[in-house]
Amino acid sequence: MSGGEVKISPPVKVVEWVGDAKRGHLRVLDQTRLPTETVFLDCRDALGVWEAIRRLAVRGAPAIGVAAGYGMVVAAQFIPETGDFLTGVEAAAEYLEGARPTAVNLSWAARRVVRRAQQSFRGDFDAVRNAMLDEARAIHAEDEAMCLAIAEHAAPLVRKCSGVLTHCNAGALATAGIGTATAGMYLAHARGHRFTVYCDETRPLLQGSRLTAWELMQAGIETVVIADNMAAQVMRERRVQMVITGADRIAANGDAANKIGTYGLAIIAARHGVPFYVAAPYSTFDLKIRSGRDIPIEQRGAEEITEGFGRRTAPIGAKTYSPAFDVTPAELITAIITDRGIIQPVNEENVRKVVG
Amino acid sequence: MSGGEVKISPPVKVVEWVGDAKRGHLRVLDQTRLPTETVFLDCRDALGVWEAIRRLAVRGAPAIGVAAGYGMVVAAQFIPETGDFLTGVEAAAEYLEGARPTAVNLSWAARRVVRRAQQSFRGDFDAVRNAMLDEARAIHAEDEAMCLAIAEHAAPLVRKCSGVLTHCNAGALATAGIGTATAGMYLAHARGHRFTVYCDETRPLLQGSRLTAWELMQAGIETVVIADNMAAQVMRERRVQMVITGADRIAANGDAANKIGTYGLAIIAARHGVPFYVAAPYSTFDLKIRSGRDIPIEQRGAEEITEGFGRRTAPIGAKTYSPAFDVTPAELITAIITDRGIIQPVNEENVRKVVG
Repeated sequence: MSGGEVKISPPVKVVEWVGDAKRGHLRVLDQTRLPTETVFLDCRDALGVWEAIRRLAVRGAPAIGVAAGYGMVVAAQFIPETGDFLTGVEAAAEYLEGARPTAVNLSWAARRVVRRAQQSFRGDFDAVRNAMLDEARAIHAEDEAMCLAIAEHAAPLVRKCSGVLTHCNAGALATAGIGTATAGMYLAHARGHRFTVYCDETRPLLQGSRLTAWELMQAGIETVVIADNMAAQVMRERRVQMVITGADRIAANGDAANKIGTYGLAIIAARHGVPFYVAAPYSTFDLKIRSGRDIPIEQRGAEEITEGFGRRTAPIGAKTYSPAFDVTPAELITAIITDRGIIQPVNEENVRKVVG
Repeated sequence: MSGGEVKISPPVKVVEWVGDAKRGHLRVLDQTRLPTETVFLDCRDALGVWEAIRRLAVRGAPAIGVAAGYGMVVAAQFIPETGDFLTGVEAAAEYLEGARPTAVNLSWAARRVVRRAQQSFRGDFDAVRNAMLDEARAIHAEDEAMCLAIAEHAAPLVRKCSGVLTHCNAGALATAGIGTATAGMYLAHARGHRFTVYCDETRPLLQGSRLTAWELMQAGIETVVIADNMAAQVMRERRVQMVITGADRIAANGDAANKIGTYGLAIIAARHGVPFYVAAPYSTFDLKIRSGRDIPIEQRGAEEITEGFGRRTAPIGAKTYSPAFDVTPAELITAIITDRGIIQPVNEENVRKVVG
C-alpha cells in the first residue's frame, strides 16, 4: 500500500462530543486509569469538565483545547435563557480556565467559543448553543487535520525504518487526532509498513510506558518499553534508525524544549548517526524567543522521584533535582516536522520560512 | 586538611564478624530493607549465610566475597570434630557457592578459606577454625585496603570538583570498605572537602536512589537524587565537574562493562567536556577479553520495567528490552582508577602497564 488515500483514525477517542448541543455531553478517556484500565468519563456539567482537566484525565495541550471547546457547550446548557446569557458564557470560560491556569490551549479554545457565541447570539438560545458546538467541532477538526498534516510529512521517514525510538507521550492521547510524534507512525502503519517502536518509559512520570506504549499497542504497532538509560544501547545495537519526539516550545532558532531526557537522547543519537526529529504543530513555535537559553526550566516536586509510584525508593530526607524539561539545541535536531512542512536544516532562516 | 593521615571508615558495617571463631557469627546489613530501614541480620548457621547471599541482603562482588569467607567460619562450627572435618569444610564451600552460582568472588573467597583449613589442619579443631577466621579477616582487610588504594588515587580528582555524578551503586554497600566509585568521595570528604554528589536513580532496580544516596547521606555527604534522564541537563548547567562509576568487567583494551546507562552517560559527559572516570579493583580486569565487543550482555526480566515501583506502569502484555549492562568504549573514559594506579589515557598498553 502507498499514497495518502488510507483512512486513519486515532487508536482511541480521547475527546468526543456525544449527542446534540442542547442535551449532549463531553466524553473523555480517563488517562489517569491507563495503562491498566480503559475508562471513559461523561462530563455532563461544567464541574465535570473542570475536574477532568484539573486531575489530568485529559492531558496534552491540543487535547485540553478540544475538551475545553466542548466543555463550553456543556456549560452553556446550564446558563439561564435570559438576556444575560453571554455574561454566563464568559463566566463559564473563566471557570474552565481555572482548571489549569498555565494551559495556553485551554484559554485559547474557551475564548474562541465565547467569541463565536458573541458573534452568533441573536436571542435564539438553541441557535447560539449550536453555533458554540460548531466552533468546538471546528477546533476538534483543526486538531485532527494538524496531526494528519504532520503525519504526511513524517510517514515517509518512518517508512525507511525497522525501528523508531520515542520519548514521553506526544501521541494520540495528547491530541484529538493521531498525535504529533506518533502521527507518522500511525500513518506508515496504516499504509502497511511494519516496524517496532521503542518507548522510553520517561521518568519521573512514565508517560512513555503508561501512555505511548498503550496507545501504540491499541493500534497494533509493535511496541517495546525500555528504561530511559537503555536508549544508548538500543542505538548501539542499530535497533532504531530514527528518534522522534514532540516539543513543548520551540524558539526562533529551532532550539526545542521538551520533556526532560530529550536533550540527552539527542546527544546519544548524534553519536550513533541516528537522525533525531522533532514533530510539532506550528503553534508550538514561539518566535519571540530567540534561542533555548531564554526558555525557563520549571522544577518538579521531589516525591515524583522519591516515591514515584507508591513505594519509597530513596532515603527519607533525600534531596532531588528534577527539571521538568530540557532544551535540545537546533544543531542536534535533524529536522523539525510541522503541519506546515519540514524545517531542515534547523536554523532561524528555515524556521521563519516554514512557520514564520 | 590534606594528606593521607585522615582516619576513614565505611559509613556502615556492611559485613562484620562478631565474637570468636568457635561461637561467633556473621552480621550483615540487610540491603533489601534500604533505604527506609537499617536492619542487620545475624547469620548463625550456613543456611542463614546462604539465604543472606541468595536474597541479596548482601550484594556487590567484594562484599559477597567477604561474607562468604566469614560464612565458612560459621559453617565450620557445625562440622563434627572428626577426621572427616575437611570433607565437611569442602561441602560447606560447595553449599555456599550455590547461593549465587555466577558470583565469582563468592567461590573465590570460600575456596581460599577451604585451602587455609587444609593447610592448617593438624587435628586441633579450635586451631583450624581460628585459622579459617584469620583467612576470612584477611579477605576483609584486603578488600578494605583495595578501596583505600582507589581512594588515594581518586580523592585528589574529587577535590577539584564542587559536584560529582555517579550511576548505580559501586559504593561502600558493595564492598567491605569505602567502595570503589565512592572511595574518592569518602576520602575527599574526610579530608574536609565539601561537594555535592548527584546520584542517578538507575532504573530498573534503582540502586542509585536506594543504595548510593543512602550510604552517602549516612556519611554526611551532600546528595541529590536525579532520574537517569536528567544527567544531561545537570551537566549542561555545569553542576558537576566529573562523572565516576564502577565497572563489572574491563577488557584488555580498557572497554568497561557496567550497569546499563553508563555508556549513555559517558557519551553525554564527552559532549559537555566533563571527565568520565571508572573506578575498579585490578580484579575487575579480564585481560583474556580483547575488547568490549566480546562481552556478552545479559537480558533482565520484563517485570523490573513494567512493575518496578510496586505498581504496574506499562500495559499488560507490553514487551520490554532490558539489557542488564552496557559497554563504555575506552575512548570515552578519561581514566580508569584502580587500586594499583591510574590508567590514563585508557588503552591496551597502559592497561597492561598498570594491572597486567
